[in-house]
Order: sequence, then structure tokens, then C-alpha cells
Amino acid sequence: MKLDVFEIISVGNELLNGKTLNTNAHWLAKTITKLGGFVRRCTVVRDDVDDISSAIKESIKRKVNWLIISGGLGPTYDDKTLQGLAKALNRELIVNADALKMVEKKYEMMAHHGMIKKADLTPERIKMAKLPKGSKPIINPIGTAPGVMIDDGYKKIVCLPGVPVEMRAIFKESILPMITKVINNFYHEKSIHTTGIVESELAPLIEKALSNNPLVYIKSYPKGYEEGNAKIEIQVTAMAEQYFTAKKRVEDALEQLKSMIMAHGGMIEK
Amino acid sequence: MKLDVFEIISVGNELLNGKTLNTNAHWLAKTITKLGGFVRRCTVVRDDVDDISSAIKESIKRKVNWLIISGGLGPTYDDKTLQGLAKALNRELIVNADALKMVEKKYEMMAHHGMIKKADLTPERIKMAKLPKGSKPIINPIGTAPGVMIDDGYKKIVCLPGVPVEMRAIFKESILPMITKVINNFYHEKSIHTTGIVESELAPLIEKALSNNPLVYIKSYPKGYEEGNAKIEIQVTAMAEQYFTAKKRVEDALEQLKSMIMAHGGMIEK
Repeated sequence: MKLDVFEIISVGNELLNGKTLNTNAHWLAKTITKLGGFVRRCTVVRDDVDDISSAIKESIKRKVNWLIISGGLGPTYDDKTLQGLAKALNRELIVNADALKMVEKKYEMMAHHGMIKKADLTPERIKMAKLPKGSKPIINPIGTAPGVMIDDGYKKIVCLPGVPVEMRAIFKESILPMITKVINNFYHEKSIHTTGIVESELAPLIEKALSNNPLVYIKSYPKGYEEGNAKIEIQVTAMAEQYFTAKKRVEDALEQLKSMIMAHGGMIEK
Repeated sequence: MKLDVFEIISVGNELLNGKTLNTNAHWLAKTITKLGGFVRRCTVVRDDVDDISSAIKESIKRKVNWLIISGGLGPTYDDKTLQGLAKALNRELIVNADALKMVEKKYEMMAHHGMIKKADLTPERIKMAKLPKGSKPIINPIGTAPGVMIDDGYKKIVCLPGVPVEMRAIFKESILPMITKVINNFYHEKSIHTTGIVESELAPLIEKALSNNPLVYIKSYPKGYEEGNAKIEIQVTAMAEQYFTAKKRVEDALEQLKSMIMAHGGMIEK
């Protein structure tokens, strides 16, 4: 089974000063995993050209297939993702004619609807159309800043805006179809909840279930105690080339695990 | 003003397959920023010794002062943070007598309360007391796995459990007092909400406010449109050695920004 390795880079001071919870990375990780992609790492950096550039270079060095970057595409001085990307790839930032048309159209529409007075292409608006050489703009169905795509065959770099609705819209409309075209894996996961067994007692049972089912991943999450009774969630996941194979592997492992847990005095919650 | 540079590493497949939203990193970033620390980067890696080890090494190479790692301290096979840390630092993993006592005490208490049958120090339980040479265990007031601290003077590495209540409890009880002892900076932030001005119109105003107030950071967050009216949140932040200095810088910048926005036909929401 060939795995497509994804990494996510989230850009924004607000993610590192505690203002904003990084729901973008969570949504991307969840969506990509469900599509059969393997999300290996997520990095959160500040609005700093050098920090953005080095995170991108490190990711490329680790031989990523898909690098998804979100945040920092807007018109303000601290939207620096494309500068960071240009620096990482050692490419010039140039006004992309297609991107400029997309931006222009948005502001014309906004002026037409009376949302702004002038649709002029000010430096701040042109900035959103300055892409690293060799990039393609991606239509933003909601906001003004286009997404950006660089496709070098083996590795693809995608830049999405940080505004969650815009990020999701571009991803669903333009990136998701590209991913499903090249990925043929299926991911399946199922969780059970146990009581009456602590994690250290569960650990050897999980190891046994894993040695019998080497193609699944089993992970336990302690959920505290209720009336002195340990509560644990156990998640079993598998990736396979066929959906029913992934599903069967998860179910087989879960069945074995359940029997072992009950034999040890634990209970499975319905 | 001397800045203490923090980085956060979150360990766990569940953070990269979309199961779990990384609220730990958010809580840590928020808490550390409020304490006057500078959070430069957050990295999320899978339960993999090599991935954990390389993330730690990269962070150390970037000359971090405080590296806060959460997740992967428990008794199961996939709790690999201490193995990764030992590998990154090229130190042996050895049973720490103090840590073993902490673990032992927890299970004795659980057996005493009838939560488990036997308090034996099984390999899975001893595992939580195997720390990289030169580490100190930190009392976990809630769960069984102790936290871990390595203090090399210039750089401090702290490992916390991934279970949020345990992570927060150890941080508040043991790490927060250490941080406040060495950090003397104050962070202040204030946000306003504007309507009737789009981000590309706001951008030059923010730049002007910044050139007048170079010691603050101003960031805008587009919040969509209401009845064709652009809504934007603007956050102004500052760090200073005195609380009132940070506060005054934020307020001065905000006042200037507000006047400029209103002069441009924008409105400030009350």
C-alpha cells in the first residue's frame, strides 16, 4: 500500500498567543485522514517570513507529498505566507495575471453591491495576486485572497486562507478532488468505551491484540474515574486499499480486544 | 527586554488523524503568553520515536529556552515520548527511584480504594518511571504518570501527560511557579470590532498605526459580512517589562486606529 504523506503548516501569531484554537489543522487532518491520506506532522509558526520559510523547507526535506499551508494570504502587512514560500523555494514573487483577475473581479463585485466605494487595485489588493513563480491561483469562492498551488509532481504545495470558511470552501471545491484522484486508500476507525480496568492493566491486552492484528493501530485514552471506576476509550484504526478490508481489520481486532477485556473483569459500555 | 522563547511539542496520532482537537497546545500557548513568555512554534508529531526525537532536536537547535512537550507518558506501548526524548538527547532511559515511588504510591492508593485488584509494579507501570538520565520527575496530582523535567540552565525541557486535566494540573502546580520566577514581562491584548470597512482598506491604516506605535502588534481577522457590511476584529497586543507600559501601548495604538477607521467611514462596535 502506497501512502501519500501530508504535512500541515498553520501560520498565525493568533495560534501561538492563545487567541485562536487551531480548528483549521484539526479539520484538515480529519478530512485528509478520511480521504486515505497519512498526516505525519503539523507545524504552527508565527507571521514571520523566516519562520514560515524554514518550516516549509524542513517539511520538503522530510519528503512530504502534500504540504497544506493555511493562513497568511490576506492583504495586510502581516500576511506573509507567500513571501515565506517564495523564500523557501528560492523563487521570485510576481504578480500572477490570473490571480489578479480573480482579485479584481471580487472587488468589482463588492463595489457593484455597494460594499466598498472603490474597486481600485490598491497595493494591498495587488499583494494577494503576487505568487511565487510557477504557482497557480485557486479560486476562493467566498473571500478575496485566492488559494495557491505549486505542483512539482512528486510534491504538491497548497496555500489556503486562514479564515475557516474560506479555507474549507477552497479545500472542498479544488483540493479534495485532486486528492481523491491520486489516493486509493481507505481509512476506518471505531472506538469502544470500557470501565473497571485501568490503563496499565489494559496495556498488555492491547499489545496482545496488536500482535494478533499487526495491521491495525490501537490507542487508549483514559477518561477519568466514575465512582472509583476507571473509564477508558479505545480507538482502533486501519488503512487499506479496500474499504471492507480496513473495516474487517478494525472489527476483528476489536472483537478480540473486547473478549480479553471482559475476561480480565473489565466491562464494555454499550 | 529579554524574551524567554517557548516551543510546544504535542505528541499523539489522535491529533493528526482528526480524532482530537489540540486544546492542550492552545491552553499552553494562552497560559504561557499571559505569563509573559514568547511562544514561537508548536509542532504536532505522531507516536513515533524518530518523529518525536527529531522534533525535539530541531527545537533545541533553534535555541529554545523552554520546550514543553505533552502526551505520550502513559503505560501503553505507544506512549513513546520519553524514548524519543532520550534518543534526542542521547541519554539512557533508566528507572528513576523518585518516579518509581510516585507511581507505586498511586497504585497502592488505587488498590486501597478497591479501584484495582493488585498494586504490583508490572512492566507497564515501571515504564512510566523510566526517565532519560538526569531528569527529575514531577508529581502528577491527578493521574499515574509523573511529569518529567530536564533543566540545563539555559534550556528547560518539560514533559506533561496528554490527558488535559493532568497536563493542566502539573503545569499549574509545578511549572507555572518556575516560569513566573524567571520571567518579568507582561503581555496585554485588546480587541475591537469594526464594520463598514474591508480588510484591504484597513491594511494601510494598520500600517500607519504601527509605524506610529512600533512596539505593538496589530492583527486583523475578517469575520464575514452582515447585510453587505464587512465585519472585522482587530487585536492589538504588546509585551513590556511593566504591566502599565504594555497596557498604555495597546491603548494608545487602539485610539489612533479607531480615529483613522472612523475618518475612513468605518464604525467601531461598542
